[in-house]
Amino acid sequence: MAENRMISVEEALDTVLNVAQRLPPVTVSLHEALGKVLAQDITAPDPLPPYPASVKDGYAVLASDGPGEYTVITESRAGNDGVGVTVTPGTVAYVTTGGPIPDGADAVVQVEDTQLIESASVDSKRVRILKQIKQGVDIRPVGCDIAEGDVVLKSGERLGPAEIGLLATVGVLTVKVYPTPTIAVLSTGDELVEPTSEILNRGQIRDSNRAMILAAGTQQQCKVLDLGIAHDDEKEIEKILDRASSSGIDILLTSGGVSMGDRDFVKPLLEKSGRVHFHKVCMKPGKPLTFAEILPGSTENKKANKILAFGLPGNPVSCLVCFHLFVVPAIRHLSGWTNPHLPRVHARLKRSIKTDPIRPEFHRAFVKWEVNSRLGNSGFVAESTGHQMSSRLLSMKSANAFLELPASGNLIPAGSFVVASIISDLSDFAGHGIPTSTQSVNAEQGCMPQEINIES
Amino acid sequence: MAENRMISVEEALDTVLNVAQRLPPVTVSLHEALGKVLAQDITAPDPLPPYPASVKDGYAVLASDGPGEYTVITESRAGNDGVGVTVTPGTVAYVTTGGPIPDGADAVVQVEDTQLIESASVDSKRVRILKQIKQGVDIRPVGCDIAEGDVVLKSGERLGPAEIGLLATVGVLTVKVYPTPTIAVLSTGDELVEPTSEILNRGQIRDSNRAMILAAGTQQQCKVLDLGIAHDDEKEIEKILDRASSSGIDILLTSGGVSMGDRDFVKPLLEKSGRVHFHKVCMKPGKPLTFAEILPGSTENKKANKILAFGLPGNPVSCLVCFHLFVVPAIRHLSGWTNPHLPRVHARLKRSIKTDPIRPEFHRAFVKWEVNSRLGNSGFVAESTGHQMSSRLLSMKSANAFLELPASGNLIPAGSFVVASIISDLSDFAGHGIPTSTQSVNAEQGCMPQEINIES
Ligand code: NWS
Ligand code: NWS
Repeated sequence: MAENRMISVEEALDTVLNVAQRLPPVTVSLHEALGKVLAQDITAPDPLPPYPASVKDGYAVLASDGPGEYTVITESRAGNDGVGVTVTPGTVAYVTTGGPIPDGADAVVQVEDTQLIESASVDSKRVRILKQIKQGVDIRPVGCDIAEGDVVLKSGERLGPAEIGLLATVGVLTVKVYPTPTIAVLSTGDELVEPTSEILNRGQIRDSNRAMILAAGTQQQCKVLDLGIAHDDEKEIEKILDRASSSGIDILLTSGGVSMGDRDFVKPLLEKSGRVHFHKVCMKPGKPLTFAEILPGSTENKKANKILAFGLPGNPVSCLVCFHLFVVPAIRHLSGWTNPHLPRVHARLKRSIKTDPIRPEFHRAFVKWEVNSRLGNSGFVAESTGHQMSSRLLSMKSANAFLELPASGNLIPAGSFVVASIISDLSDFAGHGIPTSTQSVNAEQGCMPQEINIES
Repeated sequence: MAENRMISVEEALDTVLNVAQRLPPVTVSLHEALGKVLAQDITAPDPLPPYPASVKDGYAVLASDGPGEYTVITESRAGNDGVGVTVTPGTVAYVTTGGPIPDGADAVVQVEDTQLIESASVDSKRVRILKQIKQGVDIRPVGCDIAEGDVVLKSGERLGPAEIGLLATVGVLTVKVYPTPTIAVLSTGDELVEPTSEILNRGQIRDSNRAMILAAGTQQQCKVLDLGIAHDDEKEIEKILDRASSSGIDILLTSGGVSMGDRDFVKPLLEKSGRVHFHKVCMKPGKPLTFAEILPGSTENKKANKILAFGLPGNPVSCLVCFHLFVVPAIRHLSGWTNPHLPRVHARLKRSIKTDPIRPEFHRAFVKWEVNSRLGNSGFVAESTGHQMSSRLLSMKSANAFLELPASGNLIPAGSFVVASIISDLSDFAGHGIPTSTQSVNAEQGCMPQEINIES
């Protein structure tokens, strides 16, 4: 059994991440790979472009020919276009963006810098080249984007849309990735009734934690398993936990039943079926958080994976705070993330906040980017979500950060900087405040398509 | 037809957002509601807690009784426990966290501040109360978290796990939300072959844009429809576009075929079936971006929704940059987001960057939070993803931001602040750098569970 002391948040998180192990890699198709972490290096089997390719729609020329009138000997768009044809002095070839450069040519003149000569006959077009260009202009040489044999993606990298595009580019359509864990969620408590209950009898409340934590698991890309509501009944909870444990889950999340009540059965049951690593954390809210590892029963259980079990506190806010601070990093670690931690920034307090004298507090807040006339002084500003009681789920509404307030018992004055752990993506606080840096450009005057360099 | 001029990024985005219309709300179940925007206000039908509830495991007492020995007259955990029983001077009732407070009691003494008297008989327990507490301590009065009739969620708010929990709390299991759009994705180009192709013939490359944009759409919670690869053939593309348009999609995304080539058929076809709003934007990359609205054919098309069509440039980087800058805000607008814009912050350049003289550039970069000894000087630092050629998809790899570089042709020196549009969630740059502010707390000494106030 774990010692009966309250450990720090850091120690608790370290313990969780030490116990957690990356899940064994699986092979998935591209569309299942999105958001997952690669478990293999990816090498390019061929160069990109595989042939010298045009960067523009225009004419492949010999740069030394210079401006003048030329015969168009071929049109090279894709495939075998222009095969066997050689651009010689005095001739040019029509090329489209991405099309192969015919032999002999060493530069491309974009169509805007040319004039088709009207009088020319149908099968022998002639064109006027208006501009002198340098060798190599607007040609992508073989392998200029990706050389043959290049490692384009490394094991440990996470696959977003660009990475999926890279996999398609190099023709890799099934990849080894770390799977995301399967999470089972159980609510415990005699007072709980299904959220569908319209009328509440005396002493009843609707179960909100289960729907909330199932959603939170889904948001972290996990498969989720709903274990329902269990009464505060040792045998009933034990049966549910046993069944869940043998059904191939990676993480078991219960809520409620972990404090000091005479029917708080979660901790004793976790002690029975595994090893409880801690059951009290010095934090506000979330103090009764319990963490255990359940070792798979040796006989029946075929898929003998280790299960991480979190006894989340019943108070809805404590439950979700603990999910973000401990379960999310655990999920990320299991899923192969190199850095499983929540992103953390500094934010300036909009209003003063009184801190707890004993436990460091994770104060729910909304942070947004605020612009200062001196750019270097712009930064995140944090606004509290209001009354922080751990039963008041409204204090989590719209919160995108937890402010980490050290336990000093002091007032942190408005304007002070505190550490903020970011718990949702930044999109929700899209900075209306920043005028675009491109706004001053006069589009009509400044933007003629004149550049001829290789960037396009 | 649109005028033949290059418009600014701001003008282009304004046009898109003006043409885009919120999709008509639909009613969905809780588990489909995650991530969506509410299209109705949500009111609490009953208060939370619905009864005065204990914040602790302990004894419901009359505060005026004070320390001493008392008879435990009932145990109140949930439901009808303790109904009809009244706590009178000289008696107390056992209560668990969340359990109803019996009539008469006006405070709770946590179990840690009590001692059960061993000698007491089985059916009449006695307890020693060790501490004097004030009236109201550790009782949540009726409605203290949510009052009956409170609007707990407003139309326009986005539903994360906490909001899903709030819906469950108030017993609302189906909600009106704005749906996310359905997006169809088509690649065009004679040079393109399926990514499954192992051997590339001359003039062929693998189609990477389609897998990439389908993934990007999925990442934005959209339903996606794969339209395959079309040759540079006007009739073929027209047939595919027509079929897609009549299949209930909201957004049509093509890539390629929008520049100056003689077989760039996308723009003319969009002009034919709808209204092209712009087809050139002053930006680097992404210049040939084309935007049109397709009006549904009046006869056959039952689901007469307006379709937003984006002719994305073929270069993979340009394609994905335009997706983030224009399609993502369009998706969010259709999905009912109040602020559809990408979040923007300021970031300090790690190295100097030369800007384009003509077009504002969206330079792909990786931004992360860097800690400075003076907290107020901490901030985002931006590192370029390297060579920015628009065919080099590796410049999008691991990029989490676009640096907006104004078109001055000047060198922006290292250390300067630039605006960065954030394109992925911050998790990927989790700041290893910040030591937790709670680390200095000595857990064993500082964290005894002594507090008795209502916060738990
Ligand atoms: N003597 C003593 N008593 C103590 C503590 C202590 O130190 N000493 N610590 C505190 C702290 S301190 Mo905190 O995190 O720092 O704020 S939680 C915490 C709390 C944890 O209690 P727990 O056993 O986990 O949960 P229980 O089942 O008792 O429920 C807790 C509440 O949440 C509700 N609830 C449950 N499940 C659901 C659900 N699914 N949906 C909606 N609401 C739900 C349920 O009605 C109840 O109001 O006990 C307190 N009591
Ligand atoms: N004369 C003239 N010529 C010009 C411009 C101009 O001003 N004047 N502008 C530039 C700019 S300027 Mo830029 O955004 O600022 O960088 S794009 C841009 C470009 C847009 O051309 P487009 O017609 O959209 O696409 P095309 O089909 O030609 O392909 C483009 C490239 O992308 C590849 N490609 C296509 N599809 C896929 C796919 N699915 N998967 C993988 N790669 C794919 C394809 O092989 C080719 O290399 O034309 C240029 N040519």
